[in-house]
Amino acid sequence: MKIALAQLNYHIGNFESNTEKIISAIEKSKKENVDLVVFSELAICGYPPKDLLERKDFIERTQDALQKVAEACTDIAAVVGGPSINPNTKGKNLYNSAFFISNGKVESIHNKTLLPNYDIFDEYRYFEPNTEFSLVQYKGQKIAITVCEDLWEKQPTDNNFAKSELYTISPMEELNKLNPDFVVNIAASPFSYNQKDLRTNILKSNTERYNLPIIYVNQIGAHTELIFDGDSMVLNSKGDVACRLKYFEEDYQVVDMNKIEDKALESAEVDYIEKIHDALVLGLKDYFGKMGFKQATLGLSGGIDSAVTVVLAERALGKENVRVLLMPSEFSSDHSIKDAVDLAENLGIEYEIVNIQEIFSEFQKALKPSFGDLPFNVAEENIQARIRGTLVMGLSNKFGHILLNTSNKSEAAVGYGTLYGDMNGGLSVLGDVYKTDVFKMAWFMNKDKEIIPVNTIVKPPSAELRPDQKDSDSLPDYDVLDGILYRYIEKNMSSKEIIADGFEKQTVEKAIRLVNMNEYKRFQTPPILRVSSKAFGFGRKIPLVAKHS
Amino acid sequence: MKIALAQLNYHIGNFESNTEKIISAIEKSKKENVDLVVFSELAICGYPPKDLLERKDFIERTQDALQKVAEACTDIAAVVGGPSINPNTKGKNLYNSAFFISNGKVESIHNKTLLPNYDIFDEYRYFEPNTEFSLVQYKGQKIAITVCEDLWEKQPTDNNFAKSELYTISPMEELNKLNPDFVVNIAASPFSYNQKDLRTNILKSNTERYNLPIIYVNQIGAHTELIFDGDSMVLNSKGDVACRLKYFEEDYQVVDMNKIEDKALESAEVDYIEKIHDALVLGLKDYFGKMGFKQATLGLSGGIDSAVTVVLAERALGKENVRVLLMPSEFSSDHSIKDAVDLAENLGIEYEIVNIQEIFSEFQKALKPSFGDLPFNVAEENIQARIRGTLVMGLSNKFGHILLNTSNKSEAAVGYGTLYGDMNGGLSVLGDVYKTDVFKMAWFMNKDKEIIPVNTIVKPPSAELRPDQKDSDSLPDYDVLDGILYRYIEKNMSSKEIIADGFEKQTVEKAIRLVNMNEYKRFQTPPILRVSSKAFGFGRKIPLVAKHS
Repeated sequence: MKIALAQLNYHIGNFESNTEKIISAIEKSKKENVDLVVFSELAICGYPPKDLLERKDFIERTQDALQKVAEACTDIAAVVGGPSINPNTKGKNLYNSAFFISNGKVESIHNKTLLPNYDIFDEYRYFEPNTEFSLVQYKGQKIAITVCEDLWEKQPTDNNFAKSELYTISPMEELNKLNPDFVVNIAASPFSYNQKDLRTNILKSNTERYNLPIIYVNQIGAHTELIFDGDSMVLNSKGDVACRLKYFEEDYQVVDMNKIEDKALESAEVDYIEKIHDALVLGLKDYFGKMGFKQATLGLSGGIDSAVTVVLAERALGKENVRVLLMPSEFSSDHSIKDAVDLAENLGIEYEIVNIQEIFSEFQKALKPSFGDLPFNVAEENIQARIRGTLVMGLSNKFGHILLNTSNKSEAAVGYGTLYGDMNGGLSVLGDVYKTDVFKMAWFMNKDKEIIPVNTIVKPPSAELRPDQKDSDSLPDYDVLDGILYRYIEKNMSSKEIIADGFEKQTVEKAIRLVNMNEYKRFQTPPILRVSSKAFGFGRKIPLVAKHS
Repeated sequence: MKIALAQLNYHIGNFESNTEKIISAIEKSKKENVDLVVFSELAICGYPPKDLLERKDFIERTQDALQKVAEACTDIAAVVGGPSINPNTKGKNLYNSAFFISNGKVESIHNKTLLPNYDIFDEYRYFEPNTEFSLVQYKGQKIAITVCEDLWEKQPTDNNFAKSELYTISPMEELNKLNPDFVVNIAASPFSYNQKDLRTNILKSNTERYNLPIIYVNQIGAHTELIFDGDSMVLNSKGDVACRLKYFEEDYQVVDMNKIEDKALESAEVDYIEKIHDALVLGLKDYFGKMGFKQATLGLSGGIDSAVTVVLAERALGKENVRVLLMPSEFSSDHSIKDAVDLAENLGIEYEIVNIQEIFSEFQKALKPSFGDLPFNVAEENIQARIRGTLVMGLSNKFGHILLNTSNKSEAAVGYGTLYGDMNGGLSVLGDVYKTDVFKMAWFMNKDKEIIPVNTIVKPPSAELRPDQKDSDSLPDYDVLDGILYRYIEKNMSSKEIIADGFEKQTVEKAIRLVNMNEYKRFQTPPILRVSSKAFGFGRKIPLVAKHS
């Protein structure tokens, strides 16, 4: 049997485009004498459609699109994901389904059993879990069709309170009782840099436990925060990867199931910084593409965060689509302006310089009756950041550019940033990248030639909002801070456990206090491109009014 | 049997305060010879604790607090809500439990079966559903102990695609087979003005179906967005309300179960505007109280939204804790300034006036090289709103006041507001109140004397960001707009269905297009006090990059 894996980039709610992509892969497969072509989870409507699933008109459109796809499946079979309506009076409206299509129609529906409802997932909000199991009989083969999480019954985790056996039922065990020949799994599994090999290991453990080959098809592409990396693959029954599709790109491959048992690809080692880089470029590209935007703008400070952000933007959108503003004040050092200019010129992007000093003076004058002789403090620092935010949004509004936010994860964590100032933006590019990784990415970007001025990378980080200010005046060194933050945020460790890992008590408690105090700021930040297993945003829900210990 | 209903205001994560409140109600009940005192759902830790439930240290603190409560229960029994640890290796870590406590210890644990996972609820994220049923035997009575949603197996709904039978199992049917004498239900059920009588009707339908009295205890108090209204009650087996606790206030009542069958309270009719008013006052009070804030600030424009917001703030926090800024520009009418001054003086709150004209001129000068001779448009309008946002945030940062956001739901829906400008704030007070209801609330506030200048209420709404601007220049009349928005947002109707309800096609399509286009703005708005069945915020999840039909 010849099986095609179609790893495509869908667009939520864009039924025309999704259907066209699916049908053209079906047509291509027919030409290549493929028996079965496999698409990813909820391919029909794009994943995750969220509350659009609660709209009757949206579901009707999925049904129409599915009908079109089915009609294209003559002389070939396909497995494609989409919502299906639960025919029972009880239970949620929908199932998250894999449709087995052949002879121009849906021959059978295979519903998802394990509905993930952790981190960024909330599938119980929409779907009824499956409880019935059957195989597909096709061209002499018995196929077990599963949806994503159905293979994830045991989840290795580095969160110290999460359970490895989240579910009480095992769909693979149920299906295995029916003696399948191989497994198809359609997925929508997002990228996270710190879960390297996790997905392959989950697939391997299934092939080993059940002694069955697995055809795994994931989507690629970004949907607002979530970035899907593809990495679709075929594992033979020994657990070897016999076929592997690209990262972060659409791809299509055909495997002959008779020839996979002796194949075993070596997996190429890619550094995690390079993967994050590629993920963010895709995230930017798809945010702009799917929103219908073309041009980006941002403020270039001469610091490392805006430097790395602008390079990513230039790579995703092209230099002609990035325009930056330099907004020095009396506290900006000369080298900052020079570094920013050098960077803009290295990239060949348009830049303008607007000094904020006079606007700042007007603000101070206007607030003088209220502020009186109170000393210069964070209020005045924030006013400068907000003037910059207003200037760059002025450009954005006048010319239709989208402002990119440049805050990194370390800053976002401890609230080192000004709400309505430098925290502005339509999309946060680095909000899930710790500062120490931002440095690494800058060096990575410079690997062939100096794009980001080295001075930007090596000088001590500063917000330049008061004389001689340095980040290290108010924050621990980023090496230490990021170590604490990773343990608190990604691993959910308590302060006691983090201190036991060798960090100073006072520093740990200060960092955690800052994280908890600044939930309110993160509440209002733009969507953050997610590259880790625990990003700020809808995958991390902390009540603002909570009292923390 | 004498049963006490303890309707209390908890604070998430504040174990000291929650435990103290619970224990003092236990002590009071002992003095009144009560046999059983009932508290609400997750009373130990506060509801909703969200991802704090994923922290091992948080759960340990719930266990310690429960232990203290149990030790206080000598010569009395209590039912109290809290998380309990799932002892099985499979399934989620926790149950959402009701603890039956007697003789100084937890005698039995009754876990929640129906875990709501719609709108603002996401209990499947944390909890394993219950599958085992048993009664408590206490002083000769058999008690069925249930948690909130366990009674909500059939849900009447006005959303045209939601199912009335969301669940496939009925805990009440299971418990009823064991022949209980009465039902205890501990709840955390938030207020929504447009679900009047829903809760009472759900309780009534249960008493009627099973012919059993129900003791229902809800919490009161606000947790960031969510406002819980209390309204705890006892229904006799005929479905009459025999005892009813206060709305929006802590309350405590004792019922003698032998004397409820002949009691039937009349329910007092309260206008929905008054209920929303009381809910918002509580929401403000608790946000400030639980966050440890004291003083609020906001910009007073002379318009109705800031007027209604400042009155609510004055009622919640006291006039000494509200300070306002008037920020006129060349486009402000004289009457706007006068109306704002009159209002501040009527309330007796401190106000200052800062003209934004010169700051605005400096911005225009600074942007002249970029803007050239392009005509004045939304870019310049937004700059004015952002200058105001920066000024009022300056005050907030200098003096530690919390900025209140004054956007209403109609504006938030169609994106009629400036991000980083008038959309700023720590808390959105009116973000779930349609403009037409804001008008009604203004009249309600003036019912005894003119607090809000009548001119503010009767003049045509305007943002005053360009000469002679009126909301009606770019938006349909609010009567029409709100009718469309309510159908689209609360009822999930399609444009076709809304048009069939008698609205003009072009107006409906424009309104819906604006709602969909402006998801990105709402993504960055402050938490919104929720008073309806579908508020913007975490109960409504729309993917930003989605393509809408």
